[in-house]
Amino acid sequence: MRYAFYISDGTALTAEAFGHALLSMFPVNFEHKTLPFIDNQEKANEVCKTIKKAVSDSGEPPLIFHTFVNEKLKAKITDCGGICYDFLDHFIAPVEKELGVKAEPKTHRTHGVHKNYNFRIDAINYALDNDDGKRLNQLDKADLILIGVSRTGKTPTSLYLAMQYGIKVANYPLTDDDDFERLQLPKELKQYRHKLFGLTLSSQRLHEIRSQRREGSQYASMAQCRFELAEVERLYSREAVPFINSTHYSVEEIAAKILAKTNLERHRY
Amino acid sequence: MRYAFYISDGTALTAEAFGHALLSMFPVNFEHKTLPFIDNQEKANEVCKTIKKAVSDSGEPPLIFHTFVNEKLKAKITDCGGICYDFLDHFIAPVEKELGVKAEPKTHRTHGVHKNYNFRIDAINYALDNDDGKRLNQLDKADLILIGVSRTGKTPTSLYLAMQYGIKVANYPLTDDDDFERLQLPKELKQYRHKLFGLTLSSQRLHEIRSQRREGSQYASMAQCRFELAEVERLYSREAVPFINSTHYSVEEIAAKILAKTNLERHRY
Repeated sequence: MRYAFYISDGTALTAEAFGHALLSMFPVNFEHKTLPFIDNQEKANEVCKTIKKAVSDSGEPPLIFHTFVNEKLKAKITDCGGICYDFLDHFIAPVEKELGVKAEPKTHRTHGVHKNYNFRIDAINYALDNDDGKRLNQLDKADLILIGVSRTGKTPTSLYLAMQYGIKVANYPLTDDDDFERLQLPKELKQYRHKLFGLTLSSQRLHEIRSQRREGSQYASMAQCRFELAEVERLYSREAVPFINSTHYSVEEIAAKILAKTNLERHRY
Repeated sequence: MRYAFYISDGTALTAEAFGHALLSMFPVNFEHKTLPFIDNQEKANEVCKTIKKAVSDSGEPPLIFHTFVNEKLKAKITDCGGICYDFLDHFIAPVEKELGVKAEPKTHRTHGVHKNYNFRIDAINYALDNDDGKRLNQLDKADLILIGVSRTGKTPTSLYLAMQYGIKVANYPLTDDDDFERLQLPKELKQYRHKLFGLTLSSQRLHEIRSQRREGSQYASMAQCRFELAEVERLYSREAVPFINSTHYSVEEIAAKILAKTNLERHRY
């Protein structure tokens, strides 16, 4: 097994994001190891031992993706027998030239507490307070209102949009308490029609997800799933609610697709 | 204002992560714009117009961070007058050489639905079900149990660890219902002592956060904040519960610090 290390004197999140993206293009299995906050000589020495052990265990040098602000620590890590990829460093000089400004590397600038940080925490609290139709008196504050039948990914998508981009998302379930035969938009949502976005799934996938929760129930049956999804998709079309079928998508992909369709502002950096 | 674009035929999350990390080193303000799912010639033409408009609006070429699998679309985007940084491309050849394997670029490999995807969704559901001491009968399934007084960041940290790494985190508030004068670990937590991790804050910061919720209350008063934090930190020491002071840290940094201290396994890729 080949080792891949993500090492930094900060969170190592950037090293992880870059290294994973690069390695995901190769049909090779790796043993991944993230080592954050390597911010003194003692910790760097420990990491050096870990790298050398990986070399002797696997017989091959590990791939090392790193971001260091401290040059001495960086020099220590790059001199332990791994194959190092210093992806930020390579691009600093060209960007300096283009901007006519010197880079000022500091730890904790990428993932620290910034001006938009409170946006994100407020948005997480908003998503929790307005999850699953819990409240209907704060919809004026929503940037987006996700709707869909039970178990179509509304909650994780709401939380992801809050966490990643500081977007306030309420979500409202079209439940089997509603009369699916004559499905209407609840009147509380009608006035916020411009904020609505629908999620749907294949009936097969919904059946699988619901079966994990309540196996053998009417709620989880293929017939019920098929019926609810057909009705809700008819509703989306009739009311001109934009929607996506999330069957084959991760929460990151669903969120990115919603942002691409709605053009909502990302509050992040 | 200088423009920075993040463009991809996928989610553009990798382009964003890399571009933001690089630009955060420069003391320059950018107008950021993310353009995901540029996966056909028509969309690429639209993006090209947007780039050309940015050039004429700002009088300077925008910086463009991109990841494309489709070479034709990439060629289109890199030929519209922006300054392009193709950071993955630069590292593919050296990694190919090192691994002795050809890269196989595919869209949606980095942020798609992988074997560890269900781990993450399950962990999000677990965090929601076990938020704020709501349940105490699923602690055997927790990877980690965060404790702390009210408003110290337990919930966002739990959700981030679930979303990003598929780690199951319960959280339990040491509330003012507890007798702070003789603060003990609740007996339900005692048997899971090895999973406990404490959060604390400066009393000033806690006072500010609580004041946003309930201004002028006893709960938000400096005296109460100082008292609760002192008692809870004494508890952490007495019971040998590892803890961090999160005053100056973002949720990403808190999570990375917890993982560095506990060595919990990341379920992600």
